[in-house]
Amino acid sequence: MSIQQVEKAYFYYVKKIMDFNEAIALAAWDMRTGAPKNGIEQRSEVVGTLSDEVFKRSTSEEMKGYIDALTDPSVQDSLSERTKRSIEKSQEEYSRNVNIPPEEYKAYIILQTKAESVWEEAKEKSNFSLLQPYLEKIVDYKKRFIRYWGEKDGSKYNTLLDLYEPGISVDVIDRVFKQLREGIVPLVKQIAEKNNPDTTFLNKHFPKDKQREFSIHMLKKMGYDFNSGRLDETMHPFEITLNPGDVRVTTHYLEDDFKSAIFGTIHEGGHALYEQHISKDLIGTPLCTGTSMGIHESQSLFFENMVGRSYAFWEAHYDELKKYSSGQFDHVSLDEFYRAINVSKPSFIRIDADELTYPLHIMVRYELEKGLFDGDLHVKDLPGVWNEKMKEYLGIVPTNDREGVLQDIHWPGGDFGYFPSYALGYVYAAQFKHSMLKAIPDFDHQLKNGHIDAIRSWLTEHIHQYGSLKKPLEIILDTTGETINPDYLITYFNEKYKELYGL
Amino acid sequence: MSIQQVEKAYFYYVKKIMDFNEAIALAAWDMRTGAPKNGIEQRSEVVGTLSDEVFKRSTSEEMKGYIDALTDPSVQDSLSERTKRSIEKSQEEYSRNVNIPPEEYKAYIILQTKAESVWEEAKEKSNFSLLQPYLEKIVDYKKRFIRYWGEKDGSKYNTLLDLYEPGISVDVIDRVFKQLREGIVPLVKQIAEKNNPDTTFLNKHFPKDKQREFSIHMLKKMGYDFNSGRLDETMHPFEITLNPGDVRVTTHYLEDDFKSAIFGTIHEGGHALYEQHISKDLIGTPLCTGTSMGIHESQSLFFENMVGRSYAFWEAHYDELKKYSSGQFDHVSLDEFYRAINVSKPSFIRIDADELTYPLHIMVRYELEKGLFDGDLHVKDLPGVWNEKMKEYLGIVPTNDREGVLQDIHWPGGDFGYFPSYALGYVYAAQFKHSMLKAIPDFDHQLKNGHIDAIRSWLTEHIHQYGSLKKPLEIILDTTGETINPDYLITYFNEKYKELYGL
Repeated sequence: MSIQQVEKAYFYYVKKIMDFNEAIALAAWDMRTGAPKNGIEQRSEVVGTLSDEVFKRSTSEEMKGYIDALTDPSVQDSLSERTKRSIEKSQEEYSRNVNIPPEEYKAYIILQTKAESVWEEAKEKSNFSLLQPYLEKIVDYKKRFIRYWGEKDGSKYNTLLDLYEPGISVDVIDRVFKQLREGIVPLVKQIAEKNNPDTTFLNKHFPKDKQREFSIHMLKKMGYDFNSGRLDETMHPFEITLNPGDVRVTTHYLEDDFKSAIFGTIHEGGHALYEQHISKDLIGTPLCTGTSMGIHESQSLFFENMVGRSYAFWEAHYDELKKYSSGQFDHVSLDEFYRAINVSKPSFIRIDADELTYPLHIMVRYELEKGLFDGDLHVKDLPGVWNEKMKEYLGIVPTNDREGVLQDIHWPGGDFGYFPSYALGYVYAAQFKHSMLKAIPDFDHQLKNGHIDAIRSWLTEHIHQYGSLKKPLEIILDTTGETINPDYLITYFNEKYKELYGL
Repeated sequence: MSIQQVEKAYFYYVKKIMDFNEAIALAAWDMRTGAPKNGIEQRSEVVGTLSDEVFKRSTSEEMKGYIDALTDPSVQDSLSERTKRSIEKSQEEYSRNVNIPPEEYKAYIILQTKAESVWEEAKEKSNFSLLQPYLEKIVDYKKRFIRYWGEKDGSKYNTLLDLYEPGISVDVIDRVFKQLREGIVPLVKQIAEKNNPDTTFLNKHFPKDKQREFSIHMLKKMGYDFNSGRLDETMHPFEITLNPGDVRVTTHYLEDDFKSAIFGTIHEGGHALYEQHISKDLIGTPLCTGTSMGIHESQSLFFENMVGRSYAFWEAHYDELKKYSSGQFDHVSLDEFYRAINVSKPSFIRIDADELTYPLHIMVRYELEKGLFDGDLHVKDLPGVWNEKMKEYLGIVPTNDREGVLQDIHWPGGDFGYFPSYALGYVYAAQFKHSMLKAIPDFDHQLKNGHIDAIRSWLTEHIHQYGSLKKPLEIILDTTGETINPDYLITYFNEKYKELYGL
């Protein structure tokens, strides 16, 4: 076979794996958007059967053959970047999977599934000791997996970070988070001394079907293509890509808190715009998806906060919102509305946090994860250290573990190393905005006139189109001319919140 | 391996195939309930990949091994009916698939897909000649397939009938349809001389969300379990079973014709009740589904017509319907309503036909299919013979092929032999009702009081629970004590329509 024939056979092989993954994604979407509860257990078995097939194929001898042939130094010159990066991704997955003994992986999956359901009970009862033994075992498994995969620069935690944010290490995050903390904490303290504006009007009755209509309107305004997607209701909103022509968003409607659905929709819409605008050249390759969790989050947060919580945006859309609502904003000025949707106040629950205090929640988790994998922190110490860090970073202490260490599913789900991406997303978003302003100096003016197109196009040009062809650090460097720099986020927060709170 | 071990391995193997089929069913449901159009083409490829997997596994050497081992005469005594019938179904599928050369089957699938899209254009333009060459090839393929599968009792068409209604042959249908025609045609002629009642109030505006609420209410009344199903909107309503705990129905809302959604929902609900009430013993076997198209249709038609279009049913529910509607029935008596929803009049389009004239539409198609496969009818003659038969059976002649021979997708889809099941469903339904009346003599009284439970339980006891454990003729014999007998349907029609039209 010529190398072109191998290349073709490899992409054909990978395409089949992607077909199975699409069926898995559809099942996941369905299970979270209204699949009847009596069918869920059997549906999970379907996901298991399909996942086995994906695992088998992505670690097969045939796959190894393609990897060996296409990573051979002698053929590199005749391969496109597209092929080289694709095979690199296939190789990463191959190595990750093939290096874990299957029985061990299976036992881990069973443990993790069990841990997630124990977590629900532990959270319900606010009883960390129920979860503790499971979490201990999960950490042990992860440490063993890291041994199989190899440490990165002497850090076990780096190996986990690499799963979600390739190329970003503890060194980088330590630097970024320290700088960010020093920028945010004083601001949070200053705001704490100020009175918050009235927000009661936010929680009046806003009928669900009207929220839905407004959500659809917002998505269309953002440039979301409903011929390549749909909006559904769920408990915990998410975006999911089934294929390049089917990028779905979900949201959660609360009739006494419209913010949940509206900002949730804009957030997931930001993820979806990324996926909908990947270059068509990458269709049929493993590169046809966002390049990392952090870059993905930068797109959702950019839209949620830098667009959706800006004054200029609501100059264009506040009157529309009023029309969809049942009169709750009739005597509320745009200025009052803007201040109310931007109230900042330390709180216990990460997912309810405002944009300013949110990164501090992530730092608490980051310090703990680092301690577990690279330091001498033990699982049993998590609740205590959690509370200490909350006190240190946010100035408040949870009264129980339910509003503390037990609030997130990530750890029982085995997702250690995932949290930092959320905060990195904030940092990237502000950094991108800074660069964007050079190209679009009338950013606010555009938003004020309801024009999002130039903004979305800039993001497509610099970020979206590349899918996973470029790695996160490459995207950042190429787009902003520098490496990760939290200054822009700090400046954004200071400018915005000093104005909001008259500091 | 002991025979018990073989049995276990066989069911394990079959379960995986069912998992793939469930993923295919989910994709099908999704594509018909709102999947974004730009994702459809790629989604079809997913279905192709999954179908290949099902085909490969159900015709594998491993499957053949199970079939050989479990059909061995020496082990029959130690096997349950459940196992014997399961392996019989697997064997049928195996033989059907393994006997067609794969390239030939692939070429046929491509042709059929093409024919379906050509059909859309031909129908749009009312131009049969566009479709003719495709239909000719499809009939040729089907005849070749029949050669591979073998004729039944000297009839090619019997082989096709057997795909949809196992055990029912041309002899039986000829007898049943002749008798039925002799019972229906005179009645249709008598009605044609009478005036139809006013029906204008049926077509007033009935908001979609209210129709949806009433549809849900009806399904609950019927005993449909929403913990094991859901209701969605679609173009052409269908019921689809993903797994025994996930049996979905769909309906089509027309705001100026509420009948579409309400009777559509009740019809699909009838299918769903069948699937939701199959014995739990059959879960995990290929028997956990309705036994034939005809028996399935008997369940949907029983609910749509013998329940949903009865006077007693609306005695219980007409006031409720009024509440959901926007006043369109305010000055309409129950009697007027009942007569309006039961108007009978010969028409061109099968899917819009009333219950009395519907079987005649099927007979037209049956005669043509029989002529194509067992007689000397050619594809090019279909439009002419269609019109002749319409004149003979319904007394009307289509003015173009769009409202004639081109109206259905079944033939371009290759589904020859399918149509008769629809009419058999009517016959079975009336026959079942006759038997049911012996056990539930106060049938009308129950309906009048809004009680459907005893009726549904009777159907579960005699039909639903068996899934595919019993074959259609077994179900009919065991339930009614006789073979297929159209007398009961003829009597039902005569009693109902003579009263309605004062004959």
